[in-house]
Amino acid sequence: MGDLLGVAVLGAGHMGADHIRRLDQAVSGARVVAVADPETERAEEAVAGIEGVVVHREALAVLDAPGVEAVLIASPGPAHEEALLAAFARGLPVLCEKPMVPDPAGALRVVEAEARLGRRLAQIGFMRRYDAEYRRLKSLLDAGALGRPLMLHCTHRNVSSPPYFTSDRLVDSSVSHEIDAARWLLGQELTAVTVIRPAPSSAAPEGLWDPQFVVFETEQGALVDVEVFVNCGFGYQVRCEAVGETGSARIGEEHGVAVTAAGGSRLEVPQDYLVRFADAYDREVQAWVDATRRGEVTGPSVWDGYAASAVAEAGVRSLHGAGRVTVDLAERPALYAEPGS
Amino acid sequence: MGDLLGVAVLGAGHMGADHIRRLDQAVSGARVVAVADPETERAEEAVAGIEGVVVHREALAVLDAPGVEAVLIASPGPAHEEALLAAFARGLPVLCEKPMVPDPAGALRVVEAEARLGRRLAQIGFMRRYDAEYRRLKSLLDAGALGRPLMLHCTHRNVSSPPYFTSDRLVDSSVSHEIDAARWLLGQELTAVTVIRPAPSSAAPEGLWDPQFVVFETEQGALVDVEVFVNCGFGYQVRCEAVGETGSARIGEEHGVAVTAAGGSRLEVPQDYLVRFADAYDREVQAWVDATRRGEVTGPSVWDGYAASAVAEAGVRSLHGAGRVTVDLAERPALYAEPGS
Amino acid sequence: MGDLLGVAVLGAGHMGADHIRRLDQAVSGARVVAVADPETERAEEAVAGIEGVVVHREALAVLDAPGVEAVLIASPGPAHEEALLAAFARGLPVLCEKPMVPDPAGALRVVEAEARLGRRLAQIGFMRRYDAEYRRLKSLLDAGALGRPLMLHCTHRNVSSPPYFTSDRLVDSSVSHEIDAARWLLGQELTAVTVIRPAPSSAAPEGLWDPQFVVFETEQGALVDVEVFVNCGFGYQVRCEAVGETGSARIGEEHGVAVTAAGGSRLEVPQDYLVRFADAYDREVQAWVDATRRGEVTGPSVWDGYAASAVAEAGVRSLHGAGRVTVDLAERPALYAEPGS
Amino acid sequence: MGDLLGVAVLGAGHMGADHIRRLDQAVSGARVVAVADPETERAEEAVAGIEGVVVHREALAVLDAPGVEAVLIASPGPAHEEALLAAFARGLPVLCEKPMVPDPAGALRVVEAEARLGRRLAQIGFMRRYDAEYRRLKSLLDAGALGRPLMLHCTHRNVSSPPYFTSDRLVDSSVSHEIDAARWLLGQELTAVTVIRPAPSSAAPEGLWDPQFVVFETEQGALVDVEVFVNCGFGYQVRCEAVGETGSARIGEEHGVAVTAAGGSRLEVPQDYLVRFADAYDREVQAWVDATRRGEVTGPSVWDGYAASAVAEAGVRSLHGAGRVTVDLAERPALYAEPGS
Repeated sequence: MGDLLGVAVLGAGHMGADHIRRLDQAVSGARVVAVADPETERAEEAVAGIEGVVVHREALAVLDAPGVEAVLIASPGPAHEEALLAAFARGLPVLCEKPMVPDPAGALRVVEAEARLGRRLAQIGFMRRYDAEYRRLKSLLDAGALGRPLMLHCTHRNVSSPPYFTSDRLVDSSVSHEIDAARWLLGQELTAVTVIRPAPSSAAPEGLWDPQFVVFETEQGALVDVEVFVNCGFGYQVRCEAVGETGSARIGEEHGVAVTAAGGSRLEVPQDYLVRFADAYDREVQAWVDATRRGEVTGPSVWDGYAASAVAEAGVRSLHGAGRVTVDLAERPALYAEPGS
Repeated sequence: MGDLLGVAVLGAGHMGADHIRRLDQAVSGARVVAVADPETERAEEAVAGIEGVVVHREALAVLDAPGVEAVLIASPGPAHEEALLAAFARGLPVLCEKPMVPDPAGALRVVEAEARLGRRLAQIGFMRRYDAEYRRLKSLLDAGALGRPLMLHCTHRNVSSPPYFTSDRLVDSSVSHEIDAARWLLGQELTAVTVIRPAPSSAAPEGLWDPQFVVFETEQGALVDVEVFVNCGFGYQVRCEAVGETGSARIGEEHGVAVTAAGGSRLEVPQDYLVRFADAYDREVQAWVDATRRGEVTGPSVWDGYAASAVAEAGVRSLHGAGRVTVDLAERPALYAEPGS
Repeated sequence: MGDLLGVAVLGAGHMGADHIRRLDQAVSGARVVAVADPETERAEEAVAGIEGVVVHREALAVLDAPGVEAVLIASPGPAHEEALLAAFARGLPVLCEKPMVPDPAGALRVVEAEARLGRRLAQIGFMRRYDAEYRRLKSLLDAGALGRPLMLHCTHRNVSSPPYFTSDRLVDSSVSHEIDAARWLLGQELTAVTVIRPAPSSAAPEGLWDPQFVVFETEQGALVDVEVFVNCGFGYQVRCEAVGETGSARIGEEHGVAVTAAGGSRLEVPQDYLVRFADAYDREVQAWVDATRRGEVTGPSVWDGYAASAVAEAGVRSLHGAGRVTVDLAERPALYAEPGS
Repeated sequence: MGDLLGVAVLGAGHMGADHIRRLDQAVSGARVVAVADPETERAEEAVAGIEGVVVHREALAVLDAPGVEAVLIASPGPAHEEALLAAFARGLPVLCEKPMVPDPAGALRVVEAEARLGRRLAQIGFMRRYDAEYRRLKSLLDAGALGRPLMLHCTHRNVSSPPYFTSDRLVDSSVSHEIDAARWLLGQELTAVTVIRPAPSSAAPEGLWDPQFVVFETEQGALVDVEVFVNCGFGYQVRCEAVGETGSARIGEEHGVAVTAAGGSRLEVPQDYLVRFADAYDREVQAWVDATRRGEVTGPSVWDGYAASAVAEAGVRSLHGAGRVTVDLAERPALYAEPGS
């Protein structure tokens, strides 16, 4: 296809370092030309062995480095709004990790900024849309193979939560994946949310409400329920069953190698999302590189990022005792298609 | 073990006729000696080929027929209270189909009547407690293999509902199985219920709210959610996943013969509860006959029947817009153990 | 159906005691009236709690006991020929455990004796024909759902072998089940056998050739291969995949409760054939009692017993270095239908 | 990692065109600089949109084109020997599709030529070694999780065979994958082969012996059996069960999205090897590009290619009536490790 796309990566933490490796070794058509991280040491470490990469502690300095043609934002969520607006100002295509902008007001400012440009520049990192099983489920739903969708039953389990995790994070970080996946699979906005929670697991850190059970309603009357349990102890499980008027379909079931020994037959469960969704991340970034080189912007939009933030914020209010909370979205600019299209 | 137990069967409809066949051909140690049904013709038909059976249109006449040592009640729910009280008056052991007594007040009168006797005479027909998979799940929970239980995710689907079915019946008839199973599996009473429902399936008859989604809370803070969908069109599916602090376990997954042909691998789904739970019905009735011949009463009690009615009645109120409804149970007489024991 | 069928049971060992319990507690329409075992003590133990049972050390004495209307033979294989001929002489219906008669010559004498009677009296205990999964597979094959059958791939694994087991027993005892199942599923005689064996497992007792791999050919050119591994250590597994011209179907896959904990999802594997085939044994004996009370004889015939012995004997010769060995069956008397019908 | 590796691709047919697309769009670190095909039109078509590619009808001309640093051979098998020797003469690293060289004598000449160089230049395209499930199975075996391996049960099914397919091709083309996989998984050479075949399926073209059943023996006494059925009609299925002294493990089971509708639960079966092994091909070529850029040669060697040809040739002789045929391999040059290492 010609020359390699020059990419600036903002953030060289866990996720950023993984994306740098991905762009260098797994994805075709791009090369990392600049990396920003306040801790420049870890940025240097992440680019060891890659030639000619500018490393700087300031994100904005890196956006203006020579050869930068596109930006991948993997810095912490609170830094995203400024980075996105800076990329827009320079006309640079962006792939921005989720959450796009954690608070709905900031997220809406990003929507309005891009809408003013009159063209899309940003793709948001909801990587499940690139997972083979999710795509198959979406195509089944779109083809009407299950009839009109009535319910989605979702499970989101992690082995354990990081030390800084709070009860709110189960909704606005963990469940935000299900929020986007549900909007995309159903092609509908979520209009209300009710969080119910059992007595916390004794495996959860003191004070963390884990697990939680979240029920969403959609604009056409479907239900989406999510078990989120981030200290389940036994594996990383992301499952979804879609129930339609004429059939149901399930993804995320255990598979792989069935080992039978000592009285049981065993299927492995992945322990980590970077294992479960490794291919989805590769496809996501490859799709972004390919589209960018063609001069196009595809994938989840900043509207999707905003809607996820708004729904999550309503969920957090429900978690804190508000019962059923309705979601009030701003008006969708014409630039953005309906969810799922 | 000696002579055969003489059983009177009240009701010779779908369920009653099946029990008559079961007592005659599948169960050891009992024989049908009398059958009551207002339509004596179908009673005669049900006992064709069995020798020496008294058939009468009146239930009470049949209870007093010679050789009657125990009663199996399979008549319509509204007739159960009178039949149970009559059996109690005669000191006859009873196996009573569910719902024991549809309205909680009547159910409580049965509890009080048996409690006054000071000994149990009745076993209630919650046959899932005799299903091999449910029993395995119960033994896993009781052994602590999953840690303290946090959630039960349940699915209850039928191909189609009978013509007389109403929206309330999804809760007080279909879900009553899950109500009892949850109480038994968890060993806890259900204390609150919230019914949320999606826009009805177009496959449901006009006016029927189908599917529904029901969330129960328990006295120790576990959650139980149930998808009930009685016009799903594709099969009879009863599934349950128990999620504990250290593991999860699922029952009711499709199994049987995997047939691979023409691009897919296919597992059959049973179409009917008499297929799915055929063995459970056999074991239930066999267990009742065996216990009765030993002079014992085991299995689900009238308290379990009452609790199911009371929870179901709260669920129906929630369905009609009452939001989250708490369940108020009468005080449990000392005769009855805690749920699940 | 009237009075209970009086059954004499020959043999009160592991299998015999299980059948006595089954006739007493699980099967409808029969009662045990006499039991023979050289060790009368274990016979007495097996009938404890059952009233009015004659116990004797001599099988023939028991056949003539009062009330004996049918015979269940569960004594060791070498005693079967005499017992079968004695039952035939008395016109008594028989259910005879497998192997019917271990050596083909003796088995053929039983065939000839029954053929001279001109009517069937004996059913042979190939209980897999009564297993729900095998029956489903048979019905798929008979309905043509897989097209003409080309191959059966079979697995037969035990946790460990009893101390007296020899290398020949893997073929003539363990694999005899697959021999009968293949003849029945395919409706064809087996015409040749080749045994190939890997280096024995170190888990096998010194000198035991375990596992073995056995390939049968049928009269219409299908192949049947069997892995037999009786010291596999991890469970009792009986699997069969039928491959036809248009599809394949598998039975015997692990199912039951899927437990997910600590990094894996686990399905239990039964450890014992009395667990795996508990229902099949119940159905087999019930079917025999029911047919006998109707005055009929159904199920596997003495011809099936003879054919299994003849094929197994050829297999043993192949195991001892004879390469591919063809099977020479006697001519089938008109009394016996083709295999599988 | 620096500059992109310049690759010449020989052959622009089905497989070659797929590799060209892969190098251009899916693999990182390489670019296609030259393509040879006698039909230059289809070569031009395969490189449409890629800049600066030399296209020529002669393979040798292309090897000498500017910028060629490595060669991917995807031409028909009979052309491989000359191409490999030409690459060796130029010191070019090679990835050669299987079969490396169809006849064992020619394959041995390639082994000897590379051995004379004293260093490896070629990787052979047994892509299953790069499939995630196969790798997991290999790691289980190497870790001793199943104990010493005793048997491999393999299935290799295609929907239909191409028009030019012959009975020999089932062994020397289709089964050659299992030959290499078995050698690699077990770390042992195959020493004997017996082909048994059922009456052909009526779905197979006239004269084609399909299916076949192939049994291999290994140098340490393990057994490998393979069902190969290339006109099964229902899907592309590659399965392998490894049975060891303490456990068994299976790969290739159907997975993906389980759809339940109309009486059954269905898993899709892929129809094509390019679907089933898409990721394995990507990983194979990526691994080759990465190793080549590091100046290394890894993966299956020309000795593996030769051994596969020699075993396949013995299998073809067995198919034509030779019964059990032993495999005589040449002496392995010191350059090549044992199988599987």
